[in-house]
Amino acid sequence: MLKSHIEFDPEQKILDLLDQRYLPLKKKRFICKDFADVCYAIKNMVVRGAPALGVTGAYGCIFALEQCQKCASCDLEKLLDELAEARPTAVNLRWAVNAMREDINKKDSFDFLEKKWLAKAKLIHEQDIRICQLIGKSGANLIKDGFSVYTHCNAGALATGGYGTALGVIRAARQQGKNFSVIAGETRPLFQGSRLTAFELFEDNIPVKVAADNSCAFLMAKNLVDIVITGADRIAANGDAANKIGTLGIAILANYYQIPFYIAAPLSTIDINTSTGSEIPIEERDPEEVGLIGSTRIMPKEVSAYNFAFDVTPANLISGIITEKGILYPPYDESVANVFK
Amino acid sequence: MLKSHIEFDPEQKILDLLDQRYLPLKKKRFICKDFADVCYAIKNMVVRGAPALGVTGAYGCIFALEQCQKCASCDLEKLLDELAEARPTAVNLRWAVNAMREDINKKDSFDFLEKKWLAKAKLIHEQDIRICQLIGKSGANLIKDGFSVYTHCNAGALATGGYGTALGVIRAARQQGKNFSVIAGETRPLFQGSRLTAFELFEDNIPVKVAADNSCAFLMAKNLVDIVITGADRIAANGDAANKIGTLGIAILANYYQIPFYIAAPLSTIDINTSTGSEIPIEERDPEEVGLIGSTRIMPKEVSAYNFAFDVTPANLISGIITEKGILYPPYDESVANVFK
Repeated sequence: MLKSHIEFDPEQKILDLLDQRYLPLKKKRFICKDFADVCYAIKNMVVRGAPALGVTGAYGCIFALEQCQKCASCDLEKLLDELAEARPTAVNLRWAVNAMREDINKKDSFDFLEKKWLAKAKLIHEQDIRICQLIGKSGANLIKDGFSVYTHCNAGALATGGYGTALGVIRAARQQGKNFSVIAGETRPLFQGSRLTAFELFEDNIPVKVAADNSCAFLMAKNLVDIVITGADRIAANGDAANKIGTLGIAILANYYQIPFYIAAPLSTIDINTSTGSEIPIEERDPEEVGLIGSTRIMPKEVSAYNFAFDVTPANLISGIITEKGILYPPYDESVANVFK
Repeated sequence: MLKSHIEFDPEQKILDLLDQRYLPLKKKRFICKDFADVCYAIKNMVVRGAPALGVTGAYGCIFALEQCQKCASCDLEKLLDELAEARPTAVNLRWAVNAMREDINKKDSFDFLEKKWLAKAKLIHEQDIRICQLIGKSGANLIKDGFSVYTHCNAGALATGGYGTALGVIRAARQQGKNFSVIAGETRPLFQGSRLTAFELFEDNIPVKVAADNSCAFLMAKNLVDIVITGADRIAANGDAANKIGTLGIAILANYYQIPFYIAAPLSTIDINTSTGSEIPIEERDPEEVGLIGSTRIMPKEVSAYNFAFDVTPANLISGIITEKGILYPPYDESVANVFK
């Protein structure tokens, strides 16, 4: 397990983040001292991953409150809206901000609310880790001895408060003493698979090999993949799941080769107010993320690129959704409704 | 059209190649002065693309002969074997070397054979361009006004003697006055799509946008792809086609979304001695190609990667094979046999 990559210091009022943009080469920290810093960190992917964005968003509310204390014309609700919308696809960010927002009572003092929020943000953070451990427990039996597990992007400790969702399942299977290996799809354009997942698993002594995203089909054709497990950024009430761009393609390939395809996510990722995947807003990011890698330009500067950050996998391609309350199976409209009863 | 990227100077006996490793940033030339230079250029992808490897291989035979003139212990046949095997998957390289090999007659002088080979290599080069133009003519009507054409890797002028196979079809459709646009899949790990295809099409004023390989499924789901056209490195007698890694996945996705998937290739790419795709040797390259981009390391140095350079698309996923003698349709065992009658 990694040392916590999200650390809030209530004395100094700083949020100390492991800057994921520099991994695996450098373990730099990014120190958020005010509300603008937190928004910058979220938008620019210093921190990313749906559950980790939820935890960061919860702490971010405290910075919004701080800003209102200093600035008479600032509107707390508007700052919270800004924070919740800093990245549009993952629902956990909005979920956490709204959970904090419930505590606002105009009769209370700033200090009273701040104390309440400090405790609540800490609780959301701690619960997230516990929930990931429960997700791990729910899914660990899906991984058998000798399996090769394909995962996409990073749904690990770095994408959550700690432990991970998809990597939580992998960690839990490892803790059961099973021997298996993992293929980390590199995940263009930002390489969360090769940079973060490979790094996390290597640090945990779990055998891992990277694969370019476009090699997934051939690896499946060669019987080198036994199961796919990814995370999710938002799951609709019918089971459609938005996750990092590329997930949809992997799910279609898994379906073609009859390989089980699972999503691992906390219930906070399921948005029952989103009825189907078509309602999930898909963030589009700067085409330069595709055209420029470090200092290496790989695309003529006059040419642009598509850069959808997420895609939506239809429910019918998902074998099961691994949650802290067990695995949900199709039909998802029923299993999702039941788990929220 | 680009200025020729493969130029042989019979006076100076040099093969002057556009070094494709530096595109689109730098238009450096790589000058081959001897046999070792030619082998290096092929192995290290100074020049790549099945038909271009054929042309380079034909000129390479002249350098093998030169080496035998200087070195009494050198065996011409062995040098030709080495050249033919410099990259194992594309059949055109072997095809061209074998076409040259047919001219060897031990009774002839070095000079006689050299003259014969000079003429033959030039002919192979010129024929390749003419064949690409015919492939373009065969396939141009597949592209309709308003289409979005998805292509993978680079099957353009840079992959052939000139004009291109998949991009030959695209160029021919453009010459018919049609308006359409192209999506160039970037093609990890070496980015032939973003570096070479985007560069070629931009220079030809054909609208092009790059996409990370893993976004292909989502672009198809959003109805942003009307047809897929790629090249091939070797086509078996039953129609199974080896092409750049990633092609198989695109073909499965196209099948899922009922989008036509075509291969464009000269008949020299069809190897009737290879009965099915399972017999095609798949080159594995250095994992560092996946882990290192320019000077940017994107993978922990202790972790390795899969790096299959090609994959095999089964014939049943291919809508048609666009050749210089028209489009071959399934059942390919019959249409392939007929075209070689």
